[in-house]
Amino acid sequence: MSKKEDSYPATTGRPELAIGLVHNPVVNKYGETVTSSITTIDVHDMARMCKTFDISALYVVTPLKSHQRLVERVAKHWTSGFGAEYNPSRKKALGLVKVVDSIDDMLNNFSSEGRAYLLIATSGRGGDKVFSFPEVRNAIWETGRAVLLFGTAHGLAGSVIGRANMLLEPIRGVSDYNHLPVRAAVAIILDRLLS
Amino acid sequence: MSKKEDSYPATTGRPELAIGLVHNPVVNKYGETVTSSITTIDVHDMARMCKTFDISALYVVTPLKSHQRLVERVAKHWTSGFGAEYNPSRKKALGLVKVVDSIDDMLNNFSSEGRAYLLIATSGRGGDKVFSFPEVRNAIWETGRAVLLFGTAHGLAGSVIGRANMLLEPIRGVSDYNHLPVRAAVAIILDRLLS
Repeated sequence: MSKKEDSYPATTGRPELAIGLVHNPVVNKYGETVTSSITTIDVHDMARMCKTFDISALYVVTPLKSHQRLVERVAKHWTSGFGAEYNPSRKKALGLVKVVDSIDDMLNNFSSEGRAYLLIATSGRGGDKVFSFPEVRNAIWETGRAVLLFGTAHGLAGSVIGRANMLLEPIRGVSDYNHLPVRAAVAIILDRLLS
Repeated sequence: MSKKEDSYPATTGRPELAIGLVHNPVVNKYGETVTSSITTIDVHDMARMCKTFDISALYVVTPLKSHQRLVERVAKHWTSGFGAEYNPSRKKALGLVKVVDSIDDMLNNFSSEGRAYLLIATSGRGGDKVFSFPEVRNAIWETGRAVLLFGTAHGLAGSVIGRANMLLEPIRGVSDYNHLPVRAAVAIILDRLLS
């Protein structure tokens, strides 16, 4: 880590980004705050995207111990189990996964070095504090460190959005249809912010 | 269709794009030409992306009758089965799916109107006839019609690439790791070519 910081000064180099895949607190279709289930393919896909875009960590946020064990088991299969030998490229990707109980735990882990960072929430719906892709991109590159939060189910709970420094505008395709899978949304967002 | 063509002249309006999700002919990890299995989540995800980016059809190309029936069953669940009522937004997306035996059948269906179109292959590997994203984007918008082919398994067979008018350059993230899931690659490519 220190080597990387030496190579890439925060104000001019490539920013250090972490991603939070949040299963709690999120809202369901009725707007109620819930804990959503793990979707293992999201963990796989996002890990591979994170590796491609040089993201430093993929935090999977869930307080459910059985779900934490599931994610750890999947990650272990690819990092030290049979999968590590069968598919070494996946080993590199799944090695980025960190399972945490809560957003607080995630931020404590990420901010352990004490350097400033931005907390950026994503939403398919819009709302207050919404910034455009170029604005968020500039802010990330200027600050040099950021955590990007993706909500599962029907999105991040209001309490999470309230804590964020910025809310990224929704992706607009070319139609008025806006039901991208989270896997696709993450790919497009990373490409727009980091490529 | 004719109404759409009236509204969007081919040379100045939004292009009409179709996508081919190709399971035959593709290559396996040893470079042998094979037929790959259907991955139903790819059909779901790509249909939702197609709807978002106003793609006219998602052709699922496989000669295997049992796999064709699987795709049709999944699509039917969401277009006229229980899923159509449960999740109407997915109905719109899955309605774009067309199952075909071969690339020839796909092109016959797409070109039935007789208008010119580009056949564009994608590849994670590069090769001859490679064009950059801006070049392919310009060509699509100038021609007004195109079919974009995505290979499953380890990519499109050479015979398919040989037929294509253009080969789209691989996506480069910011690291030298290049193992994006096809679901993520499609999202990024549609965003770069059409947004």
